[in-house]
Amino acid sequence: MGSDRSIPSLTADSLNPKVLKCEYAVRGEIVSLAQKLQQQLQANPGSYPFKEILYCNIGNPHSLGQQPITFFREVLALCDHPTILDKSKTQGLFSSDSIERARQILDQIPGRSTGAYSHSKGIKGLRDTIAAGIEARDGFPADPNDIFLTDGASPAIQMMMQLLIRSENDGIFCPVPQYPLYSASIALYGGTLVPYYLDEATGWGLEIRELEKQLETARQKGINVRALVVINPGNPTGQVLAEENQRDIVEFCKKEGLVLLADEVYQENIHVPEKQFHSFKKVCCSMGYGDKAIPLVSLQSVSKGYHGECGKRGGYMEVTGFSPEVMEQVYKLATLNACSNISGQILATLVMSPPKVGDESYESYLAEKDGILQSMARRAKMLEDGLNNLEGVTCNKAEGAMYLFPQIRLPNKAIKEAESRKKEPDAYYATRLLYATGIVVVPGSGFGQFPGTWHFRCTILPQEEKIPAIVSRLTEFHQKFMDEFRD
Amino acid sequence: MGSDRSIPSLTADSLNPKVLKCEYAVRGEIVSLAQKLQQQLQANPGSYPFKEILYCNIGNPHSLGQQPITFFREVLALCDHPTILDKSKTQGLFSSDSIERARQILDQIPGRSTGAYSHSKGIKGLRDTIAAGIEARDGFPADPNDIFLTDGASPAIQMMMQLLIRSENDGIFCPVPQYPLYSASIALYGGTLVPYYLDEATGWGLEIRELEKQLETARQKGINVRALVVINPGNPTGQVLAEENQRDIVEFCKKEGLVLLADEVYQENIHVPEKQFHSFKKVCCSMGYGDKAIPLVSLQSVSKGYHGECGKRGGYMEVTGFSPEVMEQVYKLATLNACSNISGQILATLVMSPPKVGDESYESYLAEKDGILQSMARRAKMLEDGLNNLEGVTCNKAEGAMYLFPQIRLPNKAIKEAESRKKEPDAYYATRLLYATGIVVVPGSGFGQFPGTWHFRCTILPQEEKIPAIVSRLTEFHQKFMDEFRD
Repeated sequence: MGSDRSIPSLTADSLNPKVLKCEYAVRGEIVSLAQKLQQQLQANPGSYPFKEILYCNIGNPHSLGQQPITFFREVLALCDHPTILDKSKTQGLFSSDSIERARQILDQIPGRSTGAYSHSKGIKGLRDTIAAGIEARDGFPADPNDIFLTDGASPAIQMMMQLLIRSENDGIFCPVPQYPLYSASIALYGGTLVPYYLDEATGWGLEIRELEKQLETARQKGINVRALVVINPGNPTGQVLAEENQRDIVEFCKKEGLVLLADEVYQENIHVPEKQFHSFKKVCCSMGYGDKAIPLVSLQSVSKGYHGECGKRGGYMEVTGFSPEVMEQVYKLATLNACSNISGQILATLVMSPPKVGDESYESYLAEKDGILQSMARRAKMLEDGLNNLEGVTCNKAEGAMYLFPQIRLPNKAIKEAESRKKEPDAYYATRLLYATGIVVVPGSGFGQFPGTWHFRCTILPQEEKIPAIVSRLTEFHQKFMDEFRD
Repeated sequence: MGSDRSIPSLTADSLNPKVLKCEYAVRGEIVSLAQKLQQQLQANPGSYPFKEILYCNIGNPHSLGQQPITFFREVLALCDHPTILDKSKTQGLFSSDSIERARQILDQIPGRSTGAYSHSKGIKGLRDTIAAGIEARDGFPADPNDIFLTDGASPAIQMMMQLLIRSENDGIFCPVPQYPLYSASIALYGGTLVPYYLDEATGWGLEIRELEKQLETARQKGINVRALVVINPGNPTGQVLAEENQRDIVEFCKKEGLVLLADEVYQENIHVPEKQFHSFKKVCCSMGYGDKAIPLVSLQSVSKGYHGECGKRGGYMEVTGFSPEVMEQVYKLATLNACSNISGQILATLVMSPPKVGDESYESYLAEKDGILQSMARRAKMLEDGLNNLEGVTCNKAEGAMYLFPQIRLPNKAIKEAESRKKEPDAYYATRLLYATGIVVVPGSGFGQFPGTWHFRCTILPQEEKIPAIVSRLTEFHQKFMDEFRD
C-alpha cells in the first residue's frame, strides 16, 4: 500500500464473463449498422439508394406511426396531472369515462400520486382489476396476490432466470427458434439453454415427442432442466398453439416437474379467424387441476397487442403453483427495484379492463382497436404472400404475434461468401438487404434455427400503405442477390 | 423417461442460493409487519393505540402527501396525450411553456410517441438536454453518449454489480452504514462487500486512512477490490462531502485502480447553507484530469430531490473513463431491457432542465421547489432536535438527503431481551416502536453499523404539521422503553 502501483485500468477482460458471453440479436450488430447508416443519410441524403431506414427488426409499432389508443392516453394524462380533473375545460378535452376512470385509479393509489413508490408487486387496487380481467378472459378465478406488475415482460423473464439458475448444470428448455432475450438471460445468469425445435414443416408445431427426446438428451448430459419456456403466440414464428397441444404441454410439465414459463405477450395478436388464444392458466384450470398443478408463470406486456405501448414499460406476471417460500423469494427480487413504474402499472390495468359497452369511449375504442388489428392481419398476409413469391423462400402463415420468419434457401456461393467474411449466411443476407434497401431485419441465427437452414425475422409493422413498396424493394433485392450468387 | 417419476416440486432449497442470501432491509421484515398492522387497523380501527401507520422507512415523499411539481406533470400529461396540444381549451388548462416544452420533446422522439421503445441509452435529444444540464451544473462539458437513462438508480446499481462481479473474490467497497441496495445487489451477484466505516464522531466523515486500511485488509484476504461506492449526500447518514475530501477520494481511486460509483441521487437535497453539492465528475475535471482519469459512474434519480417522483422510475447514469470495449458491454446490458420508460426519461430530462427565468412557469416552479426544500430542512431540524433530546440518543446533523440516522444506546436488559427473541437490538426497538406508535423506521442493522452500536433510519418526509406529534409519540415511547429496561 502507499506505493503508486501500476494498476490495470478497467478492461473488458476483467468483466463478468457471463456478461461478455451474452448476446441479444434484436438490438445487435445489424441494428448498430442501421443506426450508422441513418446518421450518414441524415448528413448526406444521397449516400444510399433509399430515403429512410425501415426498422423491421423489433416489434415497436409507435415508432413506425401507429397511433396510441385515445382512451388509454387520456387516463394516463389525467392520472399524471389530476389537478385538471375538476376544471370545466377538461370535460371538453377528455371523454367522461376517462375522467371517471382516472378518479377511480387515483383513489386506489396511496397518496393519490403516480409519483409514489407502490407495493413492490404493484398497487393493490390495480392488481384487483387485473385479476378480474384475467377472470373475465379465462372464466376461472385469479388472485391479485399472484400478480406482479413489472416494467414490461423483459425484467420478469430475467427475474425468473435469476431465481431458477444456480449453475451451468441448470437448464432452461427453450423453443428454437426463440426470442433471444431467453438465450441472452440464460447466458447472463450462467445456465444452459436446452433447445427443443419447433417443426417448420407443420407450421412451427410444438411436438411433445421432441420435448421428451431433448429432455432425455439433456438429462443424460447431467443437466437439471428447471423450466419450459413456451411462447404463444410464437415469437419469431407466429404460430398459435391448439388447446389440445397446450394440455399435453401441461401434462408434460407436471410429469417432469418443470416450471412452465408461458410467454403470452401476444395474446391479443391473432390474425386468422380459425385460431384462438387460450392462456395456459385457463388450460390448467379447465383440466381440473386448479392453479396448483404446476408452477406456472404467465407473462403479459403493454408493449404488444393492438396498443403496442413499448415505451411505457408495463406488464405483469401471474405466478401460480409456487409454494409460499418460493413466492417470498420472487417478492424479494421484486423489492430490489422498489416497484415498476406507475404509469406502466396503470396501462397494464387498462389493457385488462378496457372500456365496456355503454361507456362514452367504447365505440371509438373499438374502432381504434379493430382498425389496428385488422390492418395488422392484412399487412401480415401481404408480406407473407410477397415472401412466398421469392425464389427459394418459404414463409409459414402468420397466425399471430407481429412477425414473419421466412426460410431463405441461399446458393452455395452466397454461403461461401458469407463464410469468407466470417458471417452467418443469414446475417450476410440481412446486411446486404440493409445496404440495398434500408430495410432492417434480424438474421435467423440470432433466434436459433435447425442446423443448415437460414431465416430472418421481419415485423409486420410498417404502415400499411408502405407494404407494397417494401415487397417490391425486397423482391428486387432478392432477385439480384440470387442472380449474383446463383450456383 | 416415460415413467411417472416423483419429481420434487419447486422448493426454496432448489433456488439460486444468491437470491436466498440477499436481504433488502428498506422493504424487509418491519415493513411487512407494518402492512399487516395497517390491514388490521382498517378492519378494526381501535386495535392499536394509533390511527395510522406512518411510513418513515423509505424516501417516498408523494405517499406522505408531497405534491408534484406542476410544470413537470403538465409536460408529462401533454407528452402522453399530444392530440390536445393544438386545442384552444388546452391553453386555459396548461401553462404556455409546458405546451412548448412538450412540443420540443415530442419532436425529439422517433414516431413522436411516448409509446415507442427508444435507443437503449435513452432518446438522443433528451440525452443532449441532460448533458447540457450537467454542463450547467458543473461548468465542465458532458457527452450525451456517456449518459444511460434508467428506470431509477436501482437498476443502474444492479447493472454495475452484474458487470464488475465475477466471483466472491471480487469486492465492492461500500460505506458502513450504507444504503442496503448495495449489500443486496452485491450478494445477488455473488461478490464480497468490503466495508469502510464512516466516522460517526466527525459527522459521518469519510477518512482516506480508513479506506487505505480496509483496502489493505481486503487485499490480504485475496479480495480483488473493483469499485468504491460513495453516497453523497449520504444515505442513511445525511452527510455532505467537502470538495477537498472528494479530491482525496478521486486520487485514491486513481492510485488503486478502482471504479468510482458515485451515488449522487440526493444532489438537490442539501439542508444547511454551509454545505454545497459537488459532483465527482466536476471534482475530477477541476483537478485537471478531464473525465478520463478514473472510471466514474454518477447516478441521478427522479425519485429524490425536491420533486420526489419515485413512482416514475426515472434516472440516469453518466459513465466516464470507461474504455470503448467496456462501454460496449454496459450498452449490451442496457439493451436487455430494451429501454427505460419514456415518461421517466422525460422527467429525468426536466429535472436537469427546469423552467428558466422568464418562462411562464418559472415563478410558480421556484415557489413549489423552495417550499418543499425549505420545509424539508425545517422538518430535518425538528426531528434532529427531538431525537437529540431523548435519553441515550445522539443524532448527527442532517446536512443532506432525506434521513436521520440516530444512535440509540440501549440498556443491557433491552439487548438481552432482544437476544432472547433472536432479534437485533435495534430491530427489537423498531418493532416495539411500531406497535406503540405506528411509526415505521428501519433498524440500523439493515444498513450496517460499527459493531456494538445501534441506530435506526427515519425519513424526514412526514407532513410538516405532523412532525411535533411524531416527536411527542417518539419521546413518550422512548421514555417508557428506557424505563422498562433500565439497568
